[in-house]
Amino acid sequence: MGVYDILKSWGIENYKVIGEEDLKEITLGASILATGGGGDPEIGFLWALNVLKEGKDIILIDPKDFPDDALAVIAGCLGAPVVLTEKPPNGMEVLWCLESLKRYLGKEVQAIIPPEAGGVNTPVPMAVAGAVGIPVVDADGMGRAFPELQMTSFYTHGIMPSPTAAANEKGAVTVADTTSAIMAERIIRNAAMAYGGISWIAGYPMTGKQLKEAAIFNSISKSWELGKAVFRSRKLHEDPIEEIVKIVGGYKVFKGKIVDISREFGAEKTKGFSMGRLTLEGLDDYKGERAFVDFQNEWLRLEISGKTVCLPPDLILILDSETGEPIRTDIVKYGYRGTIVVVPADEKMRTEMGIRTFGPKYFGYDEDYVPVEKLVG
Amino acid sequence: MGVYDILKSWGIENYKVIGEEDLKEITLGASILATGGGGDPEIGFLWALNVLKEGKDIILIDPKDFPDDALAVIAGCLGAPVVLTEKPPNGMEVLWCLESLKRYLGKEVQAIIPPEAGGVNTPVPMAVAGAVGIPVVDADGMGRAFPELQMTSFYTHGIMPSPTAAANEKGAVTVADTTSAIMAERIIRNAAMAYGGISWIAGYPMTGKQLKEAAIFNSISKSWELGKAVFRSRKLHEDPIEEIVKIVGGYKVFKGKIVDISREFGAEKTKGFSMGRLTLEGLDDYKGERAFVDFQNEWLRLEISGKTVCLPPDLILILDSETGEPIRTDIVKYGYRGTIVVVPADEKMRTEMGIRTFGPKYFGYDEDYVPVEKLVG
Repeated sequence: MGVYDILKSWGIENYKVIGEEDLKEITLGASILATGGGGDPEIGFLWALNVLKEGKDIILIDPKDFPDDALAVIAGCLGAPVVLTEKPPNGMEVLWCLESLKRYLGKEVQAIIPPEAGGVNTPVPMAVAGAVGIPVVDADGMGRAFPELQMTSFYTHGIMPSPTAAANEKGAVTVADTTSAIMAERIIRNAAMAYGGISWIAGYPMTGKQLKEAAIFNSISKSWELGKAVFRSRKLHEDPIEEIVKIVGGYKVFKGKIVDISREFGAEKTKGFSMGRLTLEGLDDYKGERAFVDFQNEWLRLEISGKTVCLPPDLILILDSETGEPIRTDIVKYGYRGTIVVVPADEKMRTEMGIRTFGPKYFGYDEDYVPVEKLVG
Repeated sequence: MGVYDILKSWGIENYKVIGEEDLKEITLGASILATGGGGDPEIGFLWALNVLKEGKDIILIDPKDFPDDALAVIAGCLGAPVVLTEKPPNGMEVLWCLESLKRYLGKEVQAIIPPEAGGVNTPVPMAVAGAVGIPVVDADGMGRAFPELQMTSFYTHGIMPSPTAAANEKGAVTVADTTSAIMAERIIRNAAMAYGGISWIAGYPMTGKQLKEAAIFNSISKSWELGKAVFRSRKLHEDPIEEIVKIVGGYKVFKGKIVDISREFGAEKTKGFSMGRLTLEGLDDYKGERAFVDFQNEWLRLEISGKTVCLPPDLILILDSETGEPIRTDIVKYGYRGTIVVVPADEKMRTEMGIRTFGPKYFGYDEDYVPVEKLVG
C-alpha cells in the first residue's frame, strides 16, 4: 500500500506534498527552533533531498487527522551533534531501526513523527517517512531540541520511549525495551557511545490517540513559516530577527560578540554530549553588558549581567544578527556576533511533570523554574 | 510440550536429571575451571536450587544428541563479577531476555548452552533451561571463563553473538543485533554499564549443527567430575590439588602467599571489568620465588621469577591449598595462600582465529602465544 492509499484509507484529503524548496525552508526553521542543538541541518536536508530524488513523495499530515488507532514512532538521531558531522549517515540507519522495531513489535509502523524541532531531527523523520512510504505527522515532542530521549511532551504525557531501536552506519542495531524512561535513555545513550558518539533511532511507539494528547502540534508548519520568513527577509534585505521574534512570540534580549567558549571533554564527564559555556560581550544597545549561556547539546540557561533571563524548557535562540542563521553549540566560534531571542516553551512542555523532567533542577541548577515571560518582564 | 516430550521427540534416551547434590558439585567444579572469574558460585547455585524447589527438572543432554536443526542459545551474565555480589538477580532476568529473543527471532529456543565454565554461568543456564522446560547441553563456549562476549569457540568457529539480549533486575532489556562480534560485545557491555555493572544475557543463537562444530564438549560433566573429586578428597583428608591436576590434565607450578593486589578503578579505565595484578611470594618448595598474575575478570597471564609460565587462552587456576576452593579475582585478599595450576586450553580454543580473538596480543601483551605445556616444559 502506497502513501496515497494510506491517506485515502484514513479519509485524509488535506495533506502537503513537500518539495525541495519546502525542505530547505523547513530545515532552516527547525534549526532555528533547535536552540543551538539538533546538529548540522545540511545533513538532515541532504538525507531528505535524496529521498525526493529517488522519486519518493514526502507527505505531511495534520496530527488531528491521524487515526486514533494507528501507530506512529519517532525517527532521528541521538548523541553529540559534533560527532554527527564527523560520521555522516548513509540513509539506511533509521530503516534498519524500523525493521527491528517491526520484528520486535510484530506490527507495522503507519506514520513517523519528529522527536524534536531540529536541523536533523525534523528533515530526517520526513525523509524516513518518504522512504518507507508513510506520512509524517506535523507535530513533535518538544517544540525545540533537548539532549535526552525522555525529555519530550510524549513522555510527560504518559508515552514511554520504549521499545526504541538505535542503529549505526554499519547496521548494528540495539533495541531498548524497558518500563523506565531514564533507563531507555541510558541504554540508547550507551549504544551511541558504543557506536562512537551517535545513535540513529526509531521508537517511542504511540497510537494516534496518544499522539494527539501528547504531541506539540504543527511544529513542522511553524518551522516552515520561520524558514520562509528568513529567506524572504534576506531577499528583501529586511531584519530577519524581527520576523523570527514575531513568529515564535519571543523576546529579543541581547546582542553581542562571543568572547569565550569553555567546553567539557571526555566521555566520562560529558556522557556523549556537547557541553560547555559561552560568554558574550554586549554590542550596540547592550554595550557593557555580559551574557553567559550554558549548553548541553542545546542552549540551556541564559544569564545577562548577573540576572537569570531564561531557564529550560523555555527556548534560547542565538541567531546571526545579519542572516538570522542559528548559531549552534557544535560549531560556535570565538568572535561570532549573535542576537539572543528567548521564547516561551509550548504549554505542553510546562506541566509539573515537564518541569520535573526537563526544568532547571534536572539539569543541575539550584533554581526554581520561572517562565521566561516573567523573567524578561 | 514439556522437557520429556522434547527429549522423546528427539529420540534421546540418555540424559541426566540433575539434583541438589549434583548442582553443588557441578558449581564447584565450574568455578574451579573459571580461572578466577565467573562470579560468586553461591549466586549461581541458589538460582538453580530455586528452580529445583519449584518442582522443575533440570535435564542435561549430550551435545552429540542435540538435533542438527534445533535452536540453542547461551544464557548467563556479563559484567564485573564484583558487582554481581552487590546486585543479586531475581531469577527473571534471563527469562525476560528469552522472551525478547523469541519476539525478535520469531522462533522458540529449544535448548540452553552455557557460554563458559563458571560459578554463575554454568548453573544459571541449567536453571534457566529448567525454568523454561527445555534441556541444557553438556558443553560450553570456552572450557574456562573469559571476560568478553566474542571470546568463545562459538565465535571462532563462525557463530555470531547476535542477536543477544541483556536484561537487568528491573526488566529493562537491550537487544544487540549486529554483524560485528566486537560491536555486539560493546553494546552488551555498555548495556551492563547502563544497568550498573551487570547484564543478564541470552543470545548467540546456533543450530545443533553449528553447536557440534563449535562447542567444547562435556564441560559440565568435567565440572561435575572436578566437584565430586574435591568434595571426596576433603572428606577423606586427601590433597584436593592432586585430584584437580589429574582431572584437568594440568601442571602445579607454584604455591605462595598473596602479598600485593593492585586494582584498576573507574569505568573509563576498566570498562566495567575487574582488573588488576596479584603478587605472590613462594612458600614451601617455591620459597624465594615470586609470581605475578594479571587479571581482567579472569586470571590472564602468569609470570614466575621473570619467566612467562601461562598465556591466554590457557588456564590459570589459583586454588586454596587446603580446600581446593578457587580463589577469585573479585574476592581475592592479601594473605591468601594458594596453589597455582596451569592447564592447556581445549584444542578448539587454540585455533589461529582463537589466538587472535583471545590470545596474549588481544589482551595487550607484546608476546606471541606459546602453549602452556611448552612454557612449563
